Amino acid sequence: MTATTRTRLLPEERREQLLELGLRLFSGSTIDEISIDRLTEEAGVSRGLIYHYFGSKQGFREAVVQRAADDLIAQTAPPEGDDPIAKLLASLTAYVDYVIAHHEGYRSLVLAAAGGNEAVRGIYERARAAMIDRTFETPGVEDLLADTPATRLVVRGWVAFVEDTVLTWCDSPQGVTRGELARIVTDALPALVGIVR
Amino acid sequence: MTATTRTRLLPEERREQLLELGLRLFSGSTIDEISIDRLTEEAGVSRGLIYHYFGSKQGFREAVVQRAADDLIAQTAPPEGDDPIAKLLASLTAYVDYVIAHHEGYRSLVLAAAGGNEAVRGIYERARAAMIDRTFETPGVEDLLADTPATRLVVRGWVAFVEDTVLTWCDSPQGVTRGELARIVTDALPALVGIVR
Repeated sequence: MTATTRTRLLPEERREQLLELGLRLFSGSTIDEISIDRLTEEAGVSRGLIYHYFGSKQGFREAVVQRAADDLIAQTAPPEGDDPIAKLLASLTAYVDYVIAHHEGYRSLVLAAAGGNEAVRGIYERARAAMIDRTFETPGVEDLLADTPATRLVVRGWVAFVEDTVLTWCDSPQGVTRGELARIVTDALPALVGIVR
Repeated sequence: MTATTRTRLLPEERREQLLELGLRLFSGSTIDEISIDRLTEEAGVSRGLIYHYFGSKQGFREAVVQRAADDLIAQTAPPEGDDPIAKLLASLTAYVDYVIAHHEGYRSLVLAAAGGNEAVRGIYERARAAMIDRTFETPGVEDLLADTPATRLVVRGWVAFVEDTVLTWCDSPQGVTRGELARIVTDALPALVGIVR
């Protein structure tokens, strides 16, 4: 029956299935630990098929990291609406919630970016740049957030602050509640932007 | 003459010389790129001698990272004195100055910690913990900086903020001056601590 199910998948469905499985294996491990053996075993496919879709082991790993980055961007998009404060706050909260909810995968992404090869670092850097650009380009936001090099530096640094604070908290909350954590990292942005005004 | 100079070095001087050279080679590269070949060439010593002092290539690399971490701790020690605000500010400024001045080596340290093995990550984490502990244990500082889990989380996150902001600025200052950068990262600590009060 597995074989029947397998043959029924269209190529794009199969690729999708492999990526989803890769993301799951990636969460909580480093990029180099994404095991092609475990992947072939769990997906019931041959190594050849993985090479067919992704070119190489490295190609597969990069596709998984790219998918993790795409997920982050998609899930933290500002909602539709006219109120720039509400949009900014919603996007900010979505980002914080995303990092807290996906902390294992997020840690893997951050580690992959720091320790990985140029291609992986590029994926992470582009995702981070896209999030920051999007923040500054939200219509109406210019009154709240002046688009200057100093402000951009601070917003980027705030992302590093969020990453570190959330991942440290996930390892060892020390009595700080999830609500307190969310408030700290959300309030940190206006606090930091305030110092460059 | 080189040979004569070489033979005159005492073992601890030789070890010191190799570490200093290793630090220089480390600055601007990743830990895996510290080339033992270049080291033997520049120091005019044999590979055997390096293994003699450090056990293995990995042992040497770890000793270099440990030395980088020790330097950071030593150069950012709070000065003698009775005024806790002055001591805290001096230590804070020293840290910011250190990261700006040694940004290449510091980037290597951060990358090594993120991508490196457990031993290297441990060295970096202990250095960061030591700096944070020292901040909270400065006599008289408790009125300025309550020692709570939330405050510790924020101070640790601030270190990540400083690292990211300074290293991004070093790559591309975009017209932000060194003075502005120093003010941003220094002012960021009270701004962040303020939100958990």
